[in-house]
Amino acid sequence: MSLGGGVVAIDVMGGDGGAPLVMGGVARAVELFPREIGRLVLVGDKNEIARHLVHYARVARERIEICHASQSIDMGEKPMSALRGKKDSSMFRAVGLLADGKVAGVLSCGNTGCLVASGTFKLRTMAGIDRPALASVIPSPDNHFVLIDVGANPSTSPLSFVQNAVMGSLYYKTAVNKNRNPRVGLLTIGTEEGKGSETIREAHGMLKKINGEINYCGLIEGFQLFKDGVDVVLCDGFVGNILLKTIEALAGTIKNYVKARMKKNLLRMLGAFLAGGAFRDMGKDLTADRYGGAPLLGLNGTVVKSHGSSSVEAVAYALLLTFRLVGVGNEHALSDSIGRVNSMVS
Amino acid sequence: MSLGGGVVAIDVMGGDGGAPLVMGGVARAVELFPREIGRLVLVGDKNEIARHLVHYARVARERIEICHASQSIDMGEKPMSALRGKKDSSMFRAVGLLADGKVAGVLSCGNTGCLVASGTFKLRTMAGIDRPALASVIPSPDNHFVLIDVGANPSTSPLSFVQNAVMGSLYYKTAVNKNRNPRVGLLTIGTEEGKGSETIREAHGMLKKINGEINYCGLIEGFQLFKDGVDVVLCDGFVGNILLKTIEALAGTIKNYVKARMKKNLLRMLGAFLAGGAFRDMGKDLTADRYGGAPLLGLNGTVVKSHGSSSVEAVAYALLLTFRLVGVGNEHALSDSIGRVNSMVS
Repeated sequence: MSLGGGVVAIDVMGGDGGAPLVMGGVARAVELFPREIGRLVLVGDKNEIARHLVHYARVARERIEICHASQSIDMGEKPMSALRGKKDSSMFRAVGLLADGKVAGVLSCGNTGCLVASGTFKLRTMAGIDRPALASVIPSPDNHFVLIDVGANPSTSPLSFVQNAVMGSLYYKTAVNKNRNPRVGLLTIGTEEGKGSETIREAHGMLKKINGEINYCGLIEGFQLFKDGVDVVLCDGFVGNILLKTIEALAGTIKNYVKARMKKNLLRMLGAFLAGGAFRDMGKDLTADRYGGAPLLGLNGTVVKSHGSSSVEAVAYALLLTFRLVGVGNEHALSDSIGRVNSMVS
Repeated sequence: MSLGGGVVAIDVMGGDGGAPLVMGGVARAVELFPREIGRLVLVGDKNEIARHLVHYARVARERIEICHASQSIDMGEKPMSALRGKKDSSMFRAVGLLADGKVAGVLSCGNTGCLVASGTFKLRTMAGIDRPALASVIPSPDNHFVLIDVGANPSTSPLSFVQNAVMGSLYYKTAVNKNRNPRVGLLTIGTEEGKGSETIREAHGMLKKINGEINYCGLIEGFQLFKDGVDVVLCDGFVGNILLKTIEALAGTIKNYVKARMKKNLLRMLGAFLAGGAFRDMGKDLTADRYGGAPLLGLNGTVVKSHGSSSVEAVAYALLLTFRLVGVGNEHALSDSIGRVNSMVS
């Protein structure tokens, strides 16, 4: 870590909730993790930031700096036109601070496509990496797992699957369990050799070649995802993004359903009260909020994306993740490993 | 319905559980739905069928006929080699009975690829339909929806998306709610125009053109799936198959998790007992067993696929579905509508 060691820039204007929500998340992070959260640069409209900042007496102001940006990027904006027309947007300014070494990491809840584009353009991918990938931790009772890619690159090439396997494995050790050599699976629709798409078949062949460098367990199907079979699940960004959003939607739906049914009559309400701990456990163990932050792996710099629809809690945890990733500094290990696997499959 | 009116052939040897499980499912279906289940042809090894049949005194034997087949198809077998080498398999014999008009429908828990291949080869697709598609009803508290394609055709073409929209809408009316003009959504990773893949963009353009013929609501994302926004969800067979299996795995995982947590201490156990009705509701409303059967739409004949890992209950409900579909006979309505949409987008 050079100049910006330990400082994180936050794109305050990104996401559906805008500045009030993101700043609420920052305040919550400082409250929950006072030791882990370091110095912050809030990037966005300075008047709006100042207006919201007055509500947060508990945010130690001395650790906050404001960087003005006159524009913001909509969730529906296209990356190429935004790169041209929104040079003074909060997102691009934040990524620019990282590119200039003024900060060590960036957090944004904004438009994914624009974040991938600006990250790739301003920071460049690490040597040996073709494309960045978004990785997300999916909570599961038996074992949390990493899903990669969840949307940076809709049509992932076979070589990118290989590079994502290496990045995903390293991320698993950072975010989930540093003591395990994570089992990697390639998601497809039939685990017999030769099924799935041409890309999947090619990626499968390459992944078998680099076994040893990673712990490759072969092809897996959807029904194996929550069964403690693998720790890193590889898929293209199209499948991954749909899967991530569907998993979150379904988990939320079931939670609400059970809650509503529990309130149907007095007996059930009493039962729910007594059994309440089980639901609190579920809230703690399975809520997406704690795993809302997804790092954009493979760039020269730490960039974390949080959902556009993030809650205050989700922003807080994503900010914690950003500081943790900034502190890890495993770029050398990654770059060595990527160099080896690239030569093994080429 | 011609010669085989109301008779359904069952591929007894297909699926992970083999003949004992499938025949258990048949017996359960007769027990649960005595009026809906009609005459049956059990296709498979005649000795094995006879051996299991003695356990099912409650299955009215007079409605059962046995059709001997000396071979069976493994779950891992490749369609093309099976088509050549397994002509006397239970699956192909069952589909052959349908092609010859000896039965009106087929149910199989066997290898999906082989079922799609033999269905396409022996029955041919209906006039105007390029490829068959598997449709599955996904249970949801707010509104059950149809997911199509769940695995017949991994890389669906834009024109097939259009045809699947028509077939999925008609199937929704048959299987979920006949009084609703189902809202159709195209699943992608960003609902702004121009996002997603080239195929999705092209399919979206075509679907807008046929609006009126179907009730097209546009692009949707994964998080909208359980929110009562659409009734028919279009995706390619690769995405659909992964999604279907992931949804079932997650729903099962959460159910088991809550159950286990409920048993953690006495207070919770008492609570769970009192609130038990809520879980029974969940079991009834959300279990995949009741929606395990997926018709292979677009063929000249009713073919229903049930999971390879189907339970006895799931086979029973899939058999009920097969009889219902056989009884509907909406081929003319479908073929007229397909003719219209094909000319609208060509």
